[in-house]
Amino acid sequence: MTTPRPAHIGMDIGGTKTEALVLDADGQVEARISFPTEQGDEGVLGTAERAIAALCERSGRTLVDVSSVGIGIPGQVDHELGTVRHAYNIGIDELDLAARLQERIGLPVSLDNDVTAAAIGAAHLMELPGTTAYLNLGTGIAAGFVIDDQPLRGAHGITGEIGHLAIDPLGRPCPCGQTGCLETVASGSALKSFWHPDGDGRVLLADAAAGDPAAVEALSLLVTGAAAGIRLLVMTFDPHTLVIGGGLRMLGAPLLDGIRDTLDGWADASPFLASLGMSDRIRILPDGSPAAAVGAALSYRS
Amino acid sequence: MTTPRPAHIGMDIGGTKTEALVLDADGQVEARISFPTEQGDEGVLGTAERAIAALCERSGRTLVDVSSVGIGIPGQVDHELGTVRHAYNIGIDELDLAARLQERIGLPVSLDNDVTAAAIGAAHLMELPGTTAYLNLGTGIAAGFVIDDQPLRGAHGITGEIGHLAIDPLGRPCPCGQTGCLETVASGSALKSFWHPDGDGRVLLADAAAGDPAAVEALSLLVTGAAAGIRLLVMTFDPHTLVIGGGLRMLGAPLLDGIRDTLDGWADASPFLASLGMSDRIRILPDGSPAAAVGAALSYRS
Ligand SMILES: [Zn+2]
Ligand SMILES: [Zn+2]
Repeated sequence: MTTPRPAHIGMDIGGTKTEALVLDADGQVEARISFPTEQGDEGVLGTAERAIAALCERSGRTLVDVSSVGIGIPGQVDHELGTVRHAYNIGIDELDLAARLQERIGLPVSLDNDVTAAAIGAAHLMELPGTTAYLNLGTGIAAGFVIDDQPLRGAHGITGEIGHLAIDPLGRPCPCGQTGCLETVASGSALKSFWHPDGDGRVLLADAAAGDPAAVEALSLLVTGAAAGIRLLVMTFDPHTLVIGGGLRMLGAPLLDGIRDTLDGWADASPFLASLGMSDRIRILPDGSPAAAVGAALSYRS
Repeated sequence: MTTPRPAHIGMDIGGTKTEALVLDADGQVEARISFPTEQGDEGVLGTAERAIAALCERSGRTLVDVSSVGIGIPGQVDHELGTVRHAYNIGIDELDLAARLQERIGLPVSLDNDVTAAAIGAAHLMELPGTTAYLNLGTGIAAGFVIDDQPLRGAHGITGEIGHLAIDPLGRPCPCGQTGCLETVASGSALKSFWHPDGDGRVLLADAAAGDPAAVEALSLLVTGAAAGIRLLVMTFDPHTLVIGGGLRMLGAPLLDGIRDTLDGWADASPFLASLGMSDRIRILPDGSPAAAVGAALSYRS
């Protein structure tokens, strides 16, 4: 009987759902599971332990065959210290998650912000060379960056927090205390706050297609805001590829073609913007891609 | 007689002035000169050749003792190809400067955008660890980034071109075709276009101090725009240090304290912004620092 080559576990602990997988020594997904996230410090630790146990069972491995565990999690992550702060949607104020999980399972554990993890995973899965900016259009809007397969982690765990960039002095008030933040127009939470408490994407598309003025305006603000985020990322990071991920990408053509048309319209009005080739840089994260869990599994590399 | 250890020449070719220096093998400035830039393809090539000859004479070296030449230059630079485009203020539309200079002098030549070169040089001279964002407040406004001593060069030579980010939909028209670009308020060219054709900083300060409404408004827009640029850089790049460079920094306290006060005022209104510690990250490039020439000399490292 041969010993399997060591593998890496990665997981994406989200507000409602945790996705976890085993990446083999060649970077291929070996087993993959998904189940509800339990809230709070103990809940999240238990969720991670259960994910690891379930993956071992599924892949026929023991912990001896696993060399690292990586976690992508929302909030302000200090990768060096292995701590996460302000992950309110999973009930965490401040937690030294890496050290505490490592104590329980006896394996090295690393943490990354979930969007940074998704950027690492997207660059790996989509085989993107050079610099990649990953734009997450989900409950919030944020970005992650990868330069030659290395994530940009920054100084204080807030790299890519573009959701709270104020882009319109006359815009909507934001819970962060500013006015006109990108997140007040281009996010799932904006749809819920300003369009409809249920904020369902399919209903938005149906209502907008039927000509409902509020839905048409919400979709238009979403498209324009997302395009403004992309323009911003291109003009700061100048990425080879800009990947759009996050749940809202499932709105499909009405969102994605809208973003491209908006960028192209801006380019028509500005030779400078035209020279940036903004819409040519865009790729969409494939449906069902476990980018954040894969990126978390790969974070042992850096 | 001993052979000197190989040195590196760096130069910053600006719109009116070229600064050039020799960096010895320990990264110390050995000789430094400055003279007017000649315009156009041939003018720039000649300027670079003259700078090299003058530096050799000054430092008692021959070209045999020099192992590389690095050039920082405005415009869209392709570091890999060694080409520069759209450097209109020195009369260059498109030039394969590295190859053509290399042919003439027989030494490896590398190119960087001048702001990227200044970022490399500032991080080196100010001994800044981790990630550095360098904000150039000069004729235009632009940024450069350094991560662990490595510059971020991006895909198409436009990294940090934040001057043409539109931050105010009701703002001023910009020559680039957009409205409300950062550069229409926070730059030397904005002072010239919208305040006074001479646009002199000392006069601006004197007039503003005397209560002249137009000067007060121009200074206020400059301060607010620069602060908006810093907020943007912190929220995308999350740098350990943000260095303010460029000629406008010589306005001193009325600009620099104004920027800090503006950032602190925004932080007072937003717990999220307060948590970013924006004004604590700011350092000012020292007066007379040859950051761009030093950074150009160091670009052989990457
Ligand atoms: Zn906000
Ligand atoms: Zn512009």
